[in-house]
Amino acid sequence: MLAYDGSEFHGWQVQPGLATIQGALAEAIARVTGETVLPQGSGRTDAGVHALAQVASFQLGSPIPATNLATALNDVLPSAIRVLQAEEAAVDFHARHSARAKTYRYRIFREDICPPFLARYVFHYPYPLNEEAMQSAAGVILGEHDFTSFMAVDPERGVSNSNREDGERSNVRTVFVSRWERKEEELIYTIRGNGFLHHMVRNLVGIFLLVGKRGLDAAGIERILQSKKRSAAGATVPASGLYLVSVEY
Amino acid sequence: MLAYDGSEFHGWQVQPGLATIQGALAEAIARVTGETVLPQGSGRTDAGVHALAQVASFQLGSPIPATNLATALNDVLPSAIRVLQAEEAAVDFHARHSARAKTYRYRIFREDICPPFLARYVFHYPYPLNEEAMQSAAGVILGEHDFTSFMAVDPERGVSNSNREDGERSNVRTVFVSRWERKEEELIYTIRGNGFLHHMVRNLVGIFLLVGKRGLDAAGIERILQSKKRSAAGATVPASGLYLVSVEY
Repeated sequence: MLAYDGSEFHGWQVQPGLATIQGALAEAIARVTGETVLPQGSGRTDAGVHALAQVASFQLGSPIPATNLATALNDVLPSAIRVLQAEEAAVDFHARHSARAKTYRYRIFREDICPPFLARYVFHYPYPLNEEAMQSAAGVILGEHDFTSFMAVDPERGVSNSNREDGERSNVRTVFVSRWERKEEELIYTIRGNGFLHHMVRNLVGIFLLVGKRGLDAAGIERILQSKKRSAAGATVPASGLYLVSVEY
Repeated sequence: MLAYDGSEFHGWQVQPGLATIQGALAEAIARVTGETVLPQGSGRTDAGVHALAQVASFQLGSPIPATNLATALNDVLPSAIRVLQAEEAAVDFHARHSARAKTYRYRIFREDICPPFLARYVFHYPYPLNEEAMQSAAGVILGEHDFTSFMAVDPERGVSNSNREDGERSNVRTVFVSRWERKEEELIYTIRGNGFLHHMVRNLVGIFLLVGKRGLDAAGIERILQSKKRSAAGATVPASGLYLVSVEY
């Protein structure tokens, strides 16, 4: 289980010549064990996206006790990535394939001046919003839906499997929790689902912001869902506010 | 009044070709007003040191209302620097010369694993410390003392005026508050004084850590103070844990 500040990484997935979480973890594992493995995450997080408890799995030849491995990895990993916990798993455990549900959170800072110590960790949006309307509309996406309208479209390749962060082939996902709440200076969105498409949370937050700006109502969100066209939806909000909170198995 | 995350700056003082707080502020003022001024801070903070409420003063020709100026500066400043408040001051006000007292805080994170979101904002020291001994010894430096033993010595220039962050010529300063306290996972040092020498707070924290490690007692700190030699004292702790908290006029 890993926590990371995604601000200075080009996302989870390893890319030649770029700092990525998966790459940094693989490098740390190699330094500690001498073994070359590619740790599999529960899903890819994009550049700038944070994690409170990402899960990664990999198979080692060396018989290292899990607790020692966690300590050793933290000694060599950059301080922006921390192994919170390590444990032995069954041979057929796979951080992505075995995941049953994931929770993401999105933090919007609402005051005029965003403290410099929070700038990397929230989306600063101090403009008027009808927060009650957003709270009421949150439930519209609950249950099983085809979320094509909220999936990133790769301008070069169109829709491909890489547009689904969980690697599944369909765009149908089930959302168990979808909630907006106010906590002091922050407006926070929580979503728990059985899987997510690429950019799905940030596109959903974008559409709820449109509701907050009174440009759309809950029925409008339903229409956009039903249209199954990305072009029907709103803007993608910045990565800085997004956290992978937990993965359930 | 400014808050900043000092992590990615080469300190307060303007330096050619390097990102500094003073430089970024001067650039923002130039963009907003068209005037070239060098804002004077209440004192220089080093690379990596943060501020919750630094004070800077400068004189403008243009008659811009202070509130508008603050908003306009925040629009062009990097998000790691925020103007919290701006107000008109008397012509003879000078952020450094007029300062009567300043408060610094130093944050030590005590748990085994430092959350990645705190790594830039604390000193991570998870090893055993006799925190009670540190709390008892804190008062030893209260009052008026010659703090030469706790002043940074420039290896090339020896002691010079640039080794006093408040620009005064003597090494005698008065400390009004010196306190260690535990707040959840953090051990926090607070010091309030009428002025500070370069590295003085980080060198004092270093000496108190030596007390925590049972390598020194309160009488030992008094002896080091009286020796008036930098070489008599301990290590300088990292900049990441240090905050300029407030300036009094």
